[in-house]
Amino acid sequence: MTTKIVLPDSELPKQWYNIAADLPTPMDPPLNQAHLPVKPEDLEKVFPMNIIEQEMSTERWIDIPEPIREKLALWRPSPLYRARNFEKLLDAPVKIYYKNEGVSPAGSHKPNTAIAQVYYNKEFGIKKLTTETGAGQWGSALSMACSMFGLECKVYMVRISFDQKPFRKMMMQVWGGNCVPSPSPDTAFGRKILGEYPDTPGSLGIAISEAIEDAVQDEHTRYSLGSVLNHVMLHQTVIGLEAQKQMAIAGDYPDVVIGCAGGGSNFAGLAFPYALDKINGKDIDIIPVEPAACPRLTRGEFAYDHGDTAGMTPLLAMYTLGHAFVPQPIHAGGLRYHGMAPMVSRLVQDGLFRPMNIGQNECYKAAVMWARSEGFISAPETSHALAAVVAEARKAKEEGKEKTILFNWSGHGLMDLVGYDRYLRGELNDVDLTDAEIAEGLQSIKGLPKPAGC
Amino acid sequence: MTTKIVLPDSELPKQWYNIAADLPTPMDPPLNQAHLPVKPEDLEKVFPMNIIEQEMSTERWIDIPEPIREKLALWRPSPLYRARNFEKLLDAPVKIYYKNEGVSPAGSHKPNTAIAQVYYNKEFGIKKLTTETGAGQWGSALSMACSMFGLECKVYMVRISFDQKPFRKMMMQVWGGNCVPSPSPDTAFGRKILGEYPDTPGSLGIAISEAIEDAVQDEHTRYSLGSVLNHVMLHQTVIGLEAQKQMAIAGDYPDVVIGCAGGGSNFAGLAFPYALDKINGKDIDIIPVEPAACPRLTRGEFAYDHGDTAGMTPLLAMYTLGHAFVPQPIHAGGLRYHGMAPMVSRLVQDGLFRPMNIGQNECYKAAVMWARSEGFISAPETSHALAAVVAEARKAKEEGKEKTILFNWSGHGLMDLVGYDRYLRGELNDVDLTDAEIAEGLQSIKGLPKPAGC
Repeated sequence: MTTKIVLPDSELPKQWYNIAADLPTPMDPPLNQAHLPVKPEDLEKVFPMNIIEQEMSTERWIDIPEPIREKLALWRPSPLYRARNFEKLLDAPVKIYYKNEGVSPAGSHKPNTAIAQVYYNKEFGIKKLTTETGAGQWGSALSMACSMFGLECKVYMVRISFDQKPFRKMMMQVWGGNCVPSPSPDTAFGRKILGEYPDTPGSLGIAISEAIEDAVQDEHTRYSLGSVLNHVMLHQTVIGLEAQKQMAIAGDYPDVVIGCAGGGSNFAGLAFPYALDKINGKDIDIIPVEPAACPRLTRGEFAYDHGDTAGMTPLLAMYTLGHAFVPQPIHAGGLRYHGMAPMVSRLVQDGLFRPMNIGQNECYKAAVMWARSEGFISAPETSHALAAVVAEARKAKEEGKEKTILFNWSGHGLMDLVGYDRYLRGELNDVDLTDAEIAEGLQSIKGLPKPAGC
Repeated sequence: MTTKIVLPDSELPKQWYNIAADLPTPMDPPLNQAHLPVKPEDLEKVFPMNIIEQEMSTERWIDIPEPIREKLALWRPSPLYRARNFEKLLDAPVKIYYKNEGVSPAGSHKPNTAIAQVYYNKEFGIKKLTTETGAGQWGSALSMACSMFGLECKVYMVRISFDQKPFRKMMMQVWGGNCVPSPSPDTAFGRKILGEYPDTPGSLGIAISEAIEDAVQDEHTRYSLGSVLNHVMLHQTVIGLEAQKQMAIAGDYPDVVIGCAGGGSNFAGLAFPYALDKINGKDIDIIPVEPAACPRLTRGEFAYDHGDTAGMTPLLAMYTLGHAFVPQPIHAGGLRYHGMAPMVSRLVQDGLFRPMNIGQNECYKAAVMWARSEGFISAPETSHALAAVVAEARKAKEEGKEKTILFNWSGHGLMDLVGYDRYLRGELNDVDLTDAEIAEGLQSIKGLPKPAGC
């Protein structure tokens, strides 16, 4: 009775899958501040040109350079598991498979793109990368990748997280990352905010602004983003490509594919190769799961919006709650984002994905069941995928239908145990947004252009 | 270029290797308080009889029951890695292989025996297990295993660790473990200590006494120990047995085998199958690595001593610093034990192993080099094995000899980052024990019987 299917290093994909080549509806272009399509040279102070080219590519298959594959081989191919203990607990007519992305040194899927981005920056002659981090998953992954390729790494961490999660900062420092609380005295924007609001807890919007300011002022420094953008989705497709090989070995094919969705990259990583199968006629139910506290795909609008709170980034055509929307402080920090990857948004708009949202108590309930049967402690973000698996299993039982479910176990929760503690004490609230609250956030996109495919 | 060698679930060993069948010198028997050999029935209130039989077995190969193999398959066989990035950094004529035991849900090798012990207790009709934990690795592993088999788990955690490491407690609670600070009001011994010293930080000795008291008073409750004893060494041999298959696939055989040694179980798990090869004539250098702050094998005595501080356990023939020896609070909490597994001790005494001790700054230095090249952040205990690998690589370079090194990467350090932070700030002291300090600890074994093989 097989529990997991492992692949040798040699089976690590040699190419990424770029869904831009197969979209039923073409992407709406990003727009600059003048509402005109962004040109590569508009971005060249922020990203290296080799990554900008990848961001705009419509080639279906893109070779993975060998030095990237060598580093990915430290934990990839990741194992595909059959969750037999969880199946028994649910007592439903379902087979449950999952990809375990928690086996990476940083504990999540994030290093899949961190390794690739650092490699391309190094190839382009860049010496230092800057980024922002909220909960700390992305800052950790980028610090690790930079240490492996010998680049400097500067992480602007939202001050309240910096203070509340000292272990994440230590983790980055072990990998040589320079992690500072944002706002910081290291940038003009940071100094300005500190002058006006010396006690501010900071925000992701401020941290992004500082990281970009730091990047653009030096010719050997660039900025790096851990989700949302096309090239990040691309780098994550190793997850789904491996899963397809492993599912074939298991002799199974999924009826349902599930992933939690924050910026969209872990979901896309598993889902995009299956989306291609669906475009080609396969009958698959593909479900991105978002928090009830941040329901972009289920209650937001498909619109042009800024990627950051301050409105400094280009406009992206995506599902959004409006860049002024501030999600409640749920424990799944990685899912607290007002927008969604344009590629994921495009495919939701085209009806290829069926999004759902779930409250955090239901998610933790599923994650505790999981830990006590399958052993692994899930990241708060990942618990959203688990809760959707439970919901789909219940539905299959009610309908008396056999189903094969595949989901992305995107990371472990060993650095984020406080949410479990509060759940077990009964202290967690579910956030139930009113229509008025949703409408209020969406005010901030009024007056912006509308996507053509809308 | 292969980075790691993975094995399918079907290659998980079907038997454990019991080195008791192959010892050059037989073991000295454990002695009771009257200094007479312990009989199985003396232990039956503490352990179930099926485990007591295993503890005393001299059968060479012992079948692993299928339900244990099914749970172990959640992470086993663990991958064997070739540490190519670290090799490049060291620039020495060495090939370095390691077993990654950090892939278990609890993050270390501890679940290998936790799963087995919980299974045997369940088979024997036991409903609840008690144990003590210092740093928390063992309490976590046992909580997880109990949740998988539906047993209650009560963990007495040394109070100062309970207060300083709230995340370990949360981890146990996610798995349903009931973790209380020791001394606790839940036992007579705990109440006595609390009455006399209400502000005591607790100790492993007190916690053991509480866990045993809790176990022996109920017919469906037993006690569980995570290292030192013969059956624990046995359960860990899956590590070395898998490594032998994987090294054969790599087409290599180790000249040097290394593991850190606290109670001795992760070291034994890798080393015992290779010790058999050595007994059969192979030329291998097998090195248990202990902290300079707790040098039992390198500066202690081979003698009869109690396993606990209070002197309540049977006398074991082992290397010891005396049960009154209190190790300094180095960060590798799992290596702070006055004694050493009797089986490991026996083989050191017979000259089969070559122990060394290393100070913690050297260990953290190696662990930071490791994290920045191989990615994974090592447990403070594991860092001792890493420092020995560095030392052996340097020696090989000086001697101009090519060497193949295999070591046990026993666990990750994501729950223990404070030591790294202090190391990076230059705040860590090395403990350099004087001969007088060693002699003082050894006072506590004066008057106890001497082992025959001494």
